[in-house]
Amino acid sequence: MALTTPTLDQVREPSDMRNFSIDQLRKLADELRAETIDAVSVTGGHLGAGLGVVELTTALHHVFDTPRDTLIWDVGHQCYPHKILTGRRDRIRTLRQGGGLSGFTKRAESEYDPFGAAHASTSISAALGFAVGRDLKHEDRNVIAVIGDGSMSAGMAYEAMNNAGHIGGRLIVILNDNDMSIAPPVGAMSHYFARLVSSKSYRSLRKLGKGVAKALHVEEAARRAEEYMRGMAMGGTLFEEMGFRYVGPIDGHDLDQLVPVLRNVRDGDNGPVLVHVVTQKGKGYAPAEAADDKYHGVAKFNVVTGEQQKSKGGPPSYTKVFAQQLIREAEKDDSVVAITAAMPGGTGLDLFGERFPDRMFDVGIAEQHAVTFAAGLAADGMKPFAAIYSTFLQRGYDQVVHDVAIQNLPVRFAIDRAGLVGADGCTHAGSFDVGYLGQLPGMVLMAAADEVELSRMVATATQIDDRPSAFRYPRGNGTGIGMPDVIEPLEIGRGRIVREGSRIAILSLGTRLGESLKAADALAAQGFSTTVADARFAKPLDEDLILRLAREHEVLITVEEGARGGFGAFVLHMLAEKGALDRGLKIRTMTLPDVFQDQDTPFNMYEEAGLNARHIAARALEAMGHDEAAAERIAAALAAS
Amino acid sequence: MALTTPTLDQVREPSDMRNFSIDQLRKLADELRAETIDAVSVTGGHLGAGLGVVELTTALHHVFDTPRDTLIWDVGHQCYPHKILTGRRDRIRTLRQGGGLSGFTKRAESEYDPFGAAHASTSISAALGFAVGRDLKHEDRNVIAVIGDGSMSAGMAYEAMNNAGHIGGRLIVILNDNDMSIAPPVGAMSHYFARLVSSKSYRSLRKLGKGVAKALHVEEAARRAEEYMRGMAMGGTLFEEMGFRYVGPIDGHDLDQLVPVLRNVRDGDNGPVLVHVVTQKGKGYAPAEAADDKYHGVAKFNVVTGEQQKSKGGPPSYTKVFAQQLIREAEKDDSVVAITAAMPGGTGLDLFGERFPDRMFDVGIAEQHAVTFAAGLAADGMKPFAAIYSTFLQRGYDQVVHDVAIQNLPVRFAIDRAGLVGADGCTHAGSFDVGYLGQLPGMVLMAAADEVELSRMVATATQIDDRPSAFRYPRGNGTGIGMPDVIEPLEIGRGRIVREGSRIAILSLGTRLGESLKAADALAAQGFSTTVADARFAKPLDEDLILRLAREHEVLITVEEGARGGFGAFVLHMLAEKGALDRGLKIRTMTLPDVFQDQDTPFNMYEEAGLNARHIAARALEAMGHDEAAAERIAAALAAS
Repeated sequence: MALTTPTLDQVREPSDMRNFSIDQLRKLADELRAETIDAVSVTGGHLGAGLGVVELTTALHHVFDTPRDTLIWDVGHQCYPHKILTGRRDRIRTLRQGGGLSGFTKRAESEYDPFGAAHASTSISAALGFAVGRDLKHEDRNVIAVIGDGSMSAGMAYEAMNNAGHIGGRLIVILNDNDMSIAPPVGAMSHYFARLVSSKSYRSLRKLGKGVAKALHVEEAARRAEEYMRGMAMGGTLFEEMGFRYVGPIDGHDLDQLVPVLRNVRDGDNGPVLVHVVTQKGKGYAPAEAADDKYHGVAKFNVVTGEQQKSKGGPPSYTKVFAQQLIREAEKDDSVVAITAAMPGGTGLDLFGERFPDRMFDVGIAEQHAVTFAAGLAADGMKPFAAIYSTFLQRGYDQVVHDVAIQNLPVRFAIDRAGLVGADGCTHAGSFDVGYLGQLPGMVLMAAADEVELSRMVATATQIDDRPSAFRYPRGNGTGIGMPDVIEPLEIGRGRIVREGSRIAILSLGTRLGESLKAADALAAQGFSTTVADARFAKPLDEDLILRLAREHEVLITVEEGARGGFGAFVLHMLAEKGALDRGLKIRTMTLPDVFQDQDTPFNMYEEAGLNARHIAARALEAMGHDEAAAERIAAALAAS
Repeated sequence: MALTTPTLDQVREPSDMRNFSIDQLRKLADELRAETIDAVSVTGGHLGAGLGVVELTTALHHVFDTPRDTLIWDVGHQCYPHKILTGRRDRIRTLRQGGGLSGFTKRAESEYDPFGAAHASTSISAALGFAVGRDLKHEDRNVIAVIGDGSMSAGMAYEAMNNAGHIGGRLIVILNDNDMSIAPPVGAMSHYFARLVSSKSYRSLRKLGKGVAKALHVEEAARRAEEYMRGMAMGGTLFEEMGFRYVGPIDGHDLDQLVPVLRNVRDGDNGPVLVHVVTQKGKGYAPAEAADDKYHGVAKFNVVTGEQQKSKGGPPSYTKVFAQQLIREAEKDDSVVAITAAMPGGTGLDLFGERFPDRMFDVGIAEQHAVTFAAGLAADGMKPFAAIYSTFLQRGYDQVVHDVAIQNLPVRFAIDRAGLVGADGCTHAGSFDVGYLGQLPGMVLMAAADEVELSRMVATATQIDDRPSAFRYPRGNGTGIGMPDVIEPLEIGRGRIVREGSRIAILSLGTRLGESLKAADALAAQGFSTTVADARFAKPLDEDLILRLAREHEVLITVEEGARGGFGAFVLHMLAEKGALDRGLKIRTMTLPDVFQDQDTPFNMYEEAGLNARHIAARALEAMGHDEAAAERIAAALAAS
């Protein structure tokens, strides 16, 4: 069914819609919504958030002089309609594909993306930077940040509001209040927003606003409606305490309200202003509106039915394996509790919470607090598991150092999405955790090679009561290895030999074990007997094992799905200290490359990273001084297998 | 002048003061203040904050059943009176000395310190962890966090309040409002606090509270005064929006108010409550009250006059050298701006702000925002220098990764207090920055060996416009090297040979260059010709230089004031990749040890770390296979020099 989009077709860039009437804008929004749905049905990706801001996106680009006016979308996963309106419609069906458009805003992609995002709650800070830069240069333009209510639970949004209120310059913050981030938002602030909207009978206000708009000239109506609503809202709102002028609430799907209010704000007083816009995630697409998650993130789907492409089945995800094992531990031990920072589904803790509702804590988008809250629980004798994606744990790094590691408190960090993550791209890659955690004295740091190993690491961490521990595991499904009846904890600091050989040793940490074994097979077939070991622990290292590998082989290759300065580095430090490099060791450390890799399929990303079996084999051969012909034979054999 | 402390002498632990009358408590507080002043006059340390909470400390330990009730001090630098009352009076004159009491709360030190601190704003998160643990175990005890108004500007305090309001269990947060953290606090929140106190004629309220207390039974008076004050304060305060019951403001130096109000709170409703206590930093010691910084941190001083021991003069501090060079750069280039997170004095940016008041931004205790605000400024074409201590930059790590490095924005990080920091101990050590920043693609990372190098790095960073850069420098004074008239920027990624030799190569990054040179002298005197190089860059590495050092020497020692996984690791990765280890290299990487080092003198801390000249020489000899006798001769020579 081909889309008919006569109005959208006229808009190659936002300047084409500046003179549109409200009526034209309404048509544009409808077509923009249809185009967004159609594009995401082909690519998969974030849908609900974009649908919720179709009218807001339309109104913003109509009222403001983008890109001269700076428009910053928080998180950026709601930006597909924005991309369609800003010269990227022809590539919108490459979203999240290799070589295609990013699923988030991205500076390198367009001048309409002045500040990229993907992690939540950065937009007000960045916008304040632009606003201060503008004022120092005595320029006259607008700076607008659009931030969701869920993102408001993060401390950095508060820090930014506090600073913006203090500095006091022109800044427009649009609070996109849909009572829904990924899961429904939690925390006292979400109640506050709910009260703001509901307590003053928002529905009737909305009707009133419309009625007044019809009766009077729209500009005047907007001004009056704004003042009226403001007066009706509780005096001294939180935002006004922070130094912002508060405008709202506004119906975010009603262009009759949005356009004049935004115009007023644009032309209004100096100083920071917060416009409270109420939207509905998934708006305008019945299957999304009906879904619990409002189609936050979807696979490819049928536009008519909304039916999403099923995943192919296969082994359970690492996320689920983690959650199931944690539930087993919690069944045996009352002190096991679990903490997530607004990702109950993504971390699998929704399952834990169903089983143990009193022992699961969703603290909101608040990783700093999550870590120290876990530290407090540990200090009180509980066994907290803080399940946080590798990339988001960066938000709580100081708390890991200062509140957990220095105090040697037994917080368990379950680090999901460690390593490359495919379509979400570099902002979500978990590249640095082995380095930034492995530096910390006392930390026990594990990486799972498969789902059985992950289960054993959960069991191990449960037992580690005298210091902090962490275990990392990747996005996606397990290897399909059978799960034993009994999950035994690991001996701390002991790796394992997976395959015995004599000339080459491959020492893998975590997920590239499978590729290491494939490389070893291929090498062995060419006459290079190869040992493969699974280090299991990045800290403490299995020094005996590693020294033996170094002593008994001509070549030692370390393989990990993390940046330099991690596992390979710790191995090198140790070998140097022990004098094991003194008389020569052909050692190579294979890590993620020293670039931020753009989104692609996992296989392609590993190709770019040079972490597939053929690269491992080639590196071993290079170290042995063999010519490239042997490497090519092995690569051909691996490609055929 | 010997102190007479008859009341304090009766208190060996808080249980000894539970039955004290208000009158006795008042005497106790006076003696506690005198003892605190006397102790700090001997040790130096944080004074003003402790003096401000003498009465509050007294009241808390009187009313609450510590240590069964959990009392958590935010930051912990105000805890000297707490330490005196909790069994540590006999060691109070060892504060901040090697082997002595920590200058902060510390779990290892006392059961009265249930949660250690030193960085700001962690207390509410930790307290919530204890409170939830208590409730899960169905225990009945109180959990109290004491947090300053300055600490409230940090996002994690807000995250914690948001979560505490949502969870809703019993939790007591005492807001110690002294309108002063280190410098006067900034941001919209500080205005909010000011309004809370001043707008309702706090002074007369205070008098009223006292009058009522005299007229009625104190318990009843307290209840009424509390309700009255609460009603008088503006409806719907920020704290109430967050789900807390708000009590206050209370005069934090008036035990007649403090004790009954705290008792009421102890015995009151369930749910989170915030007690707003107004105190005066430096209270009760005239020289402190009169000083601008309220004697926040002091050297040893004369108790009668308040005169602090002068530092011995000598070279300027690295901090000052940084600030002076940044001012020079800003004089030449209008786009240079500077950002601090509540440390204008500590970073030297107070000097910058005097010269360029419009171009200096103190964002409050808000490192996450500081970094992304800087990123926004950079995206707008400014040249932001974010001056943040190494240990505090950990708070903004995700923002460095996500908002700066991934977007390749030219934010300049001026990383003060890199390496060991002496009396502040492990919580303030800057051990990890080379690792956690050096992992990031595109980052330029420098470390200054002396104050001239630091100035050149400031000049270099000013010119780096196409990517992020950082330079680290230590606490304390420069080496006294003469400053040239013209400061030349460095060539990016180029180190320098400081001394030519032939057998041993010492490759130093940053501050241990002086010790490396001393070690080289001592080695040369024993017939071991030694090259010394200053790497200058941890990233990008000077590969040519390092490969040459490896090729032309028998031994290569890297030396840095940072944890494993940093500079030495990057050198090892590179050498392995280039095959430079294949035929043998006696390489050793000297780093900070894999422990959190307690406070001591800098020399002693370097001794413990093994980073003094004798250790460097010994390591080189060990690598060469020489016996310990040679090392001992060199150590003796170094000790004599």
